[in-house]
Formats: sequence, C-alpha cells, structure tokens
Amino acid sequence: MPVILDDARARGLQELIDFCAKQGVTCSVSSAHAPMPAIAGIGTLANAGPSEIAFLSNPRYQSQLQHTRAAAVLLTPDADAALQDAADLPPFVRVVCAHPYLAYALLARWFDAMRKPAGQGSIHPTAVVAEGAQVHASASIGAHCVIEAGAVIADGCRIGPGCIIGEGSSVGPDSLLHARVTLYHDVHIGARAIVHSGAVLGADGFGFAPDPREQGAWFKIAQLGGVTVGDDVEIGANTTIDRGALDNTQIASGVKLDNQIMIAHNVRIGAHTAIAACVGIAGSTVIGARCTIGGAAMLSGHLTLVDDVHISGGTAVTSSINKPGRYTGVYPYAEHGQWQKNAAVIQQLSQLRKRIRANTPSDRDQ
Amino acid sequence: MPVILDDARARGLQELIDFCAKQGVTCSVSSAHAPMPAIAGIGTLANAGPSEIAFLSNPRYQSQLQHTRAAAVLLTPDADAALQDAADLPPFVRVVCAHPYLAYALLARWFDAMRKPAGQGSIHPTAVVAEGAQVHASASIGAHCVIEAGAVIADGCRIGPGCIIGEGSSVGPDSLLHARVTLYHDVHIGARAIVHSGAVLGADGFGFAPDPREQGAWFKIAQLGGVTVGDDVEIGANTTIDRGALDNTQIASGVKLDNQIMIAHNVRIGAHTAIAACVGIAGSTVIGARCTIGGAAMLSGHLTLVDDVHISGGTAVTSSINKPGRYTGVYPYAEHGQWQKNAAVIQQLSQLRKRIRANTPSDRDQ
Amino acid sequence: MPVILDDARARGLQELIDFCAKQGVTCSVSSAHAPMPAIAGIGTLANAGPSEIAFLSNPRYQSQLQHTRAAAVLLTPDADAALQDAADLPPFVRVVCAHPYLAYALLARWFDAMRKPAGQGSIHPTAVVAEGAQVHASASIGAHCVIEAGAVIADGCRIGPGCIIGEGSSVGPDSLLHARVTLYHDVHIGARAIVHSGAVLGADGFGFAPDPREQGAWFKIAQLGGVTVGDDVEIGANTTIDRGALDNTQIASGVKLDNQIMIAHNVRIGAHTAIAACVGIAGSTVIGARCTIGGAAMLSGHLTLVDDVHISGGTAVTSSINKPGRYTGVYPYAEHGQWQKNAAVIQQLSQLRKRIRANTPSDRDQ
Repeated sequence: MPVILDDARARGLQELIDFCAKQGVTCSVSSAHAPMPAIAGIGTLANAGPSEIAFLSNPRYQSQLQHTRAAAVLLTPDADAALQDAADLPPFVRVVCAHPYLAYALLARWFDAMRKPAGQGSIHPTAVVAEGAQVHASASIGAHCVIEAGAVIADGCRIGPGCIIGEGSSVGPDSLLHARVTLYHDVHIGARAIVHSGAVLGADGFGFAPDPREQGAWFKIAQLGGVTVGDDVEIGANTTIDRGALDNTQIASGVKLDNQIMIAHNVRIGAHTAIAACVGIAGSTVIGARCTIGGAAMLSGHLTLVDDVHISGGTAVTSSINKPGRYTGVYPYAEHGQWQKNAAVIQQLSQLRKRIRANTPSDRDQ
Repeated sequence: MPVILDDARARGLQELIDFCAKQGVTCSVSSAHAPMPAIAGIGTLANAGPSEIAFLSNPRYQSQLQHTRAAAVLLTPDADAALQDAADLPPFVRVVCAHPYLAYALLARWFDAMRKPAGQGSIHPTAVVAEGAQVHASASIGAHCVIEAGAVIADGCRIGPGCIIGEGSSVGPDSLLHARVTLYHDVHIGARAIVHSGAVLGADGFGFAPDPREQGAWFKIAQLGGVTVGDDVEIGANTTIDRGALDNTQIASGVKLDNQIMIAHNVRIGAHTAIAACVGIAGSTVIGARCTIGGAAMLSGHLTLVDDVHISGGTAVTSSINKPGRYTGVYPYAEHGQWQKNAAVIQQLSQLRKRIRANTPSDRDQ
Repeated sequence: MPVILDDARARGLQELIDFCAKQGVTCSVSSAHAPMPAIAGIGTLANAGPSEIAFLSNPRYQSQLQHTRAAAVLLTPDADAALQDAADLPPFVRVVCAHPYLAYALLARWFDAMRKPAGQGSIHPTAVVAEGAQVHASASIGAHCVIEAGAVIADGCRIGPGCIIGEGSSVGPDSLLHARVTLYHDVHIGARAIVHSGAVLGADGFGFAPDPREQGAWFKIAQLGGVTVGDDVEIGANTTIDRGALDNTQIASGVKLDNQIMIAHNVRIGAHTAIAACVGIAGSTVIGARCTIGGAAMLSGHLTLVDDVHISGGTAVTSSINKPGRYTGVYPYAEHGQWQKNAAVIQQLSQLRKRIRANTPSDRDQ
C-alpha cells in the first residue's frame, strides 16, 4: 500500500506544485477549485483515495479519469484540453504539466522520503568494523555488517543489515546499500548509488585455462582486477558484477541495472544505459552510452555496441553492433501444435531454399 | 542420502498405510506377505535399500521393478495387474493406490518431519529484534536475524539464520523462511509459506522516468507499493519479487515458484499457478490461476494470461493470451553446422516468401 | 586494479620463470637482456606498467606489442619468431612458452596469493558454531557465520563472513567459501572448492504432486536427497544447486560453474564440465564429462548428454544428445524491422512448405 501521511503531515497541493517547480518541473492548476485540497499520498487513477494525487501519463488509461476518486490528477496540456468539454467527471483538481510522469516521480520521491526519516550516522553494535576501515560519522552501518580493513564508507551512506564490504573497497557519498549486499575487495562505487539486496560485486570472473597437464582439466585464472561503478547507478536484487581479470570491470555513471543481471569480467557499460532483469553479458563486451537492453537478452563476449543501441527483450546478440537503432531476435511463440509444425520446417530451411532456387527464376533473371 | 530412521523409529508398513488413509489417500496391500515389513525410509526403485519403500508412478521406470531391493513399492492398480503373472520379481510388498505419486509425497513429508523435530519457539541471542516488532511465543528466530520495527512473525513460524524482515512486514502462521531471506518493508506473506535462501521480496521495481533536464538521464521513481503473498506459497532460492510502484505486487494462494525467478513490480499471479526456474515476468503482467510456466520462459510487461495457460520452457511470450492451452516458441537446436545453414535462411525468409508467391499460384487460384 | 607489489616484494623475472618450471610449464627468455627486470605485477598488454609482466595468447592482440609498456611479455614460439625482424618494438623481455595463457594463469595465482596472506585458523567471535560441529584447527570461520550441528569443516578451509553451513554438511580440505554462501543440511563439498557469494546449495527441488483432493492444488514433495560436490569445483555467485528428491544431486570433480546458474534436483554433471553464467538445467538431466555449456543455455529435464558435448550460448536443449559435438539453436537477431518481416513468415512456415511441395517436383522426382 502506498504511503499515506497522517493529517498533520499532509501537504497542500500548492506546496507540492511549488516543490516540483523548484526541481525545474512546472505544473499549474487548470480547473478552478477553492480551496486547494490537502494531499496525503499518491496513487494510481484506479486506486487513489480522496486524499491522494494521481497522474495520467499513458493515454490508454484516460478512461480511468471517469471513475477516479483522486483529489488531483497530473496530466499533459493535451489531455487537459481533451477534458474541457467532458461532462460528469469526478471532482479532481487538474494539474497540467509538460511531463506528468516526471512530476509523479518527483512527488513519489517526496512521499518516500517522508516515510523514512533521514537517520543519524550510527554503527550498529553487532556490526564488525575492522581496524583501518573508515566510516564517515554521518554514515549508518546496519546490524551484522562486516566492514573489512581499508574499506571506506563516505558521508551520508546507509549500509543495510548483513552487508559485507571487502578489503579496500569504497562506497561514495549518500549511497544506499540494502540488506545483504556483498562487495568483494577492491570494488569502488560512486556517489548516490542504490544497491539492492543479494547483489554481489567483485566475485571472480569465469576464467580458466585448459590445463595441458591433465586431459579436460581447467586451471583457474586468478582474477586480479576490480570493479568500478560511477555515480547515480542503481543495481538490482541478486545482480552480479564480476571483477576484472587484470583490468577493472566498469559501470559508468547513471547506469540502471535491474534484478538478476549477470555482468561478466571486463565488461564496460556506458553512461545512462538501462538494462532490464535477467540479462546476461559475457566477458569483455563493451556497451555504449544511452543503450537499453530488454529483459532476458543475452550478449556474447568480446562484442562492441555503439551508443544508443536498443536491444529487445529475449534477444541473443552474437555480434558487434556498429549502428544505433533497435535490434531484435525473438522466436515467435504460437499454440503448441502450430509451433510444432513450423519448427519442423526450420530444420529443413536450407534444403527448402535450395529447392526454391532450383525451381524459380532468380531475382536477377527477372 | 534420503532419511533412514534407526530401528527404534522405523514403522510398520501398515502404520504408513493408515497414515495415508487418514490424509484421504487409500492404499492397500496386493501381494500376500506376512509379516508386514518395517519401513525405515523411502527411496527410488533403483536405489532403495531393503528397509525402504519405493514407488512406481511413471510407467517408463516399470522395468526397474525387476531389480529393486525395496521392501515395498507403491503402484497403480494397472501396474499391479500387469505384475500378476510376472515371474522372478524381487520379494517387495505391492501397495496399490490410485495416486502412488501423492502417496509417495505424503510419506516423504512424514519422513522429512521425522528428520527435524518440531522445535520450540525461541529467539537466538544473536538475533536483533526491534522494539515494536511482534514475534509469537511459538515462533523461532535464527541466529543473526534482523526483525525491524512493526514486523509481525506469527505463531509457529521458523525464521532461518541471517534473515532480514523489514519494517512493518509480516509472516503468517507456520511459515518457514530458510537462511538468508530478505523481506523489505511492507511485504506480507500468508500462512504455511516456504521461502528459500537468498530470496528477496520487496526490492524496488525497475521504474525510471526519462529526465528531460539531462540528455539520456533517468529519474528514479520511488516504489511506494508493497508485496502481498497468499497462503501455501513456496518461493525458490534467489528468486526476487519486486514491490509495486503504487499498488502491490500480488502472489495468490497456492502459487509455487522455483529458484531464480524474477517477478517485476505490479505483477499479479493467480492461485495455484506453478512457475519453473529462471522465468522472468516483466512489470504489470497479470497471470491467471492454474497456469504453468516452463523454465527460462520470459513474459513481456503489461500482458494478461487467462486461467489454465501452459507456457513451454524457453518461450518468449510477447502478447496477451486469451485462450487456455499450451503455447510454445523455442528455436529448435541442431548440430552447429546444420544450424548455421538454416539460420542463414531465416535472415532472408521474407524475401523467400516473396519469391515463392511470385512463382506459384496462390491458394485462392487453386 | 591488478596487484602491484612494493619494491621489497617484487621478484626477479628469473624467479618467476623458475616458479613456472616447477609447476611443469617451461618458459625461456628469447631476447638478450641484462639484467633481468624485477616484476611487481601482471597486466594486459594495453595497460601493464613498466614493472609488470604481460602475455600474448590470442593473436588478435599482437599489434598491442607495438605500444606495450610491460617489462616482459609471455608469448608462443611462433609469436616470438614473428618478432625476430620487427623494428621499433618497445624494450620488453620476450619470454617464450608453449602455453603462455597457462603461464599467465600460474603467475596470476602467484600474485593473488601475495595479496592475501595465508591466514591462521580462527573462529570469529561473532560466529555461531553449534555443539557437535567440527571445525579443524587450521580452518577460518568468518564473522556472523552459522555452523550447525554435525557440520564438518576440514583443514585449511576459509569460510567467509555470513555463511550458513547446515546440519550434517561438510566442506573438504582447503576449500574457500566467500561471504554469504548457504549450504542446507546434508550438502557435501570436496577438497579445494571455491564457492562464491550468494550461492545456495541444497534448497528443495521443485517437486509437487497434483493434489486430486483440490482442483489445481499442488502437494509438496519433501526433498529428502542431498547434494554432493567433488574436488576442485568452482561455483559462481548466486548460483543455486537444489538437493535431490530421494537420491543426491551430483557435481563431479573439476566442474566449473559460473554465476547465476540453476541446477535442479537430481541433475548429475560429469567431471571437468564447464558451464557459463545464467544456464538453467532442469531436473534429473545427466551431463557427461568435459562438456561446455554456453551462457544462458537451458536444458530440459530427464535428458542425457554424453561426454564432450558443447552447447552454444542461448541454446535450448530439449532432447538427449548421444554424439559428441557442438550444438546450437539461437534465433538470429536483426534490425527490428527486418526481424518483424522475417518473424511473420515463421508463423506460416508449414503452409509455405506445403505450397512449395505442391508446386515443385520433389527431390525424388528429379
């Protein structure tokens, strides 16, 4: 259930509009209402209560305006104009805004901050902080954390319970590690990071040399590199980022990683690239800036993707991509019987092509 | 190795048959044997020892009856009938049952319960339980757990070592959380849940608004919803279920989730749906009741699947499914060289179709 | 950043060559240089500094020799020969070796060992070791570990902080468990294992019987088997290996598992098989020795793969493989528009084949 503030903490709508303006997002009230309602929370059009503000960003939810109980709704000028002659609308205040989704994001952050008071720096008595680790006085360290020698936790960090910060690793200012995050040694995270529970940064890359001294055996290659993560990066639950073999695995600033992503050793990811859940990226692949990668896509190793490449979910990328654009490779699903029939043909495609070529004039002939 | 009870705790076969009957599963001895053997454990036909009971459920293992050392075997009336004239069978007792697999499941649970005595309510001295958290006197809290303020642990719960229960979260009666489970704040689990190690419930959904104030940058959308999980749900190791953006992510009663599944924010899963390992379900997708989803399948966001839909393993579901049935979309594998030839044709399929259409009479012409 | 030893600990190149020789890997200096340089670290050709040794194994990096700052470079006799007449090379020492990649692996291990001193056996005061657990005097147990009754930790083991070792489980000599590993009860690991953070061994297999007593409901099958892991096995971060239903899940010696792999109950994996990240293997599948499985491949249940089978990344293996070789099944990706056109044809492939067959003479006719 979304945050709902009690009456004493609810804010006037105008105060929220002023807050957005200060962040550079201008909103204005379109409908004439007096007095402005007090807002105690934020909700969806479908489920917001009479003390909440909602938003309309995706036009396909427009019909929900007919039934919303929200006190106010953020919407675009176009959506607002479309309502001018609408009859029988519920009595919500229309708040017009070029970017209602961003305004919603600003307000959601505001309400979320109301939920968790800022907190004082403190080290839980059950945490184990090695001599020689540096924890800033304004940082909080949760119960049962382990902070190893040489680790540096900067000002304003909040380290959740059960986190392990390895030797010589560092976490930049105002970062938030949720419960049970592991940083191995020599992992460096910038400012304002958010790392979710179960994430593991700095485990060994998967590197083995065939051992000619015993048939089939593998000889482990010690992974001597580290991991560097820029500023404003978010890393999802149970995501793993391996340390480099010799150089570092590198995640640039502004990168957003969802849950259960696997990033192998020596991968480099450019600024503001966003990657959805369950993606696997094999070793030494380099991804440009502002890319998006859909869920469960996989990228082979030693590839290069330029900036502004967009990979659809489920796509296997097996070669480098030198041109911005959208790329897809998903086998279409069907009812099982239909799929069986078509899949059987796949196995003979090259023979089929041969037969067609043998029996039809070629394009060049025409 | 399966549980093997010592002689003092082994039970007569009749006692086990009576136990099944009480659970509504009728079994009866078909072969004439006296006296009834004592049963100390349960095993496979191939590996059960002479003090164990085994079962035959899948007919393709029927030939293993010739060599089993088991003291008794659960089987269907049909399988039993087929044995009437068989010669040279080992001397196992035949226990006939309409549902031998369910009878096996009942007995396996019984033997498992013998392994771990019921346990008394207790809070390990190293656990950190916040003031204002409620732990029922009959619940057990393992070593190094953290139970935050406002959390509620109901009667009969067993919370394994290293679990984190966030603010205001709750776990229903008789639930079992194995070691190292994380519940963020406002995550609610019903009765008789089993949650495996490394599972993370309530991490932030992957929600970002493009920030028009800086090219390519993303603005985090605070995730204000929670997670609600019904009764009798099992959640596998390292599975992640994200909290909702505003409303809750919802898992209905009786749902079974295997390991390393990713369930994104605002997903809703209907009762008794079973999902195999490594499945990813993107945001806001709604899945009906009694569905099954095979391993490593992926579902795009904002879809609806009706009740009784069955998705084959490895299938990418990219559109809603309005009809019960089985759906598949797996690219057939082949020897590498063969695959290369066929895959090359895939890239030209639409051209190939054009050529065929140009050169053959259409169906309508025929 | 790779390990760089201070001057006092840097070693003469000859000492490193002697070290390799002792391990059975012969290296010799090809270029005439005196005196032999002191080596303080190991790096890539591109990034090694003047006190580091680098290596050339993959010929496509040969051009980097022109610009390397490395003090010495490991290379094959062929690569060395090709340099005989090269002009203007930087002044690195050429170290010739039949297996430069293996020599690099040996040296990387040597430098890594310099980073972390061997450590004394010790049990951290915050660890909870049950009465009846056996921890060898030379083993180290990290902070906040839980070692349950009957567990056995052999000589030379290092158990990282936050690990849970369940009842009756065992870890063989000289094994390393990184932080936050979970072993359930009755999980047995051999000698010299490396297990990475977040791995879970012994969670319940996904076994349920349809419960005829309630429509759609599932009845849990208690998982009574265990997990056995041989010697020299590495298991990646957040990988899960489920316990067997009745018999054990089995991982043979020398197996290497990358991160986020899912191994279901009763799977058996043969010696020296290497599996890349994000692979899922369904229940009871048996994989031979010396196989390799590429990232994000999936294997259905109840299959058998013989020895020396190589599965390409992203391939769905849905039937048994009886012949060694390389197998692939990846849908080729393309620009999105191109993909759309081709994917549309996939849906009609079997109709298309019918049309072709109707209109062209069959192979037999020709």
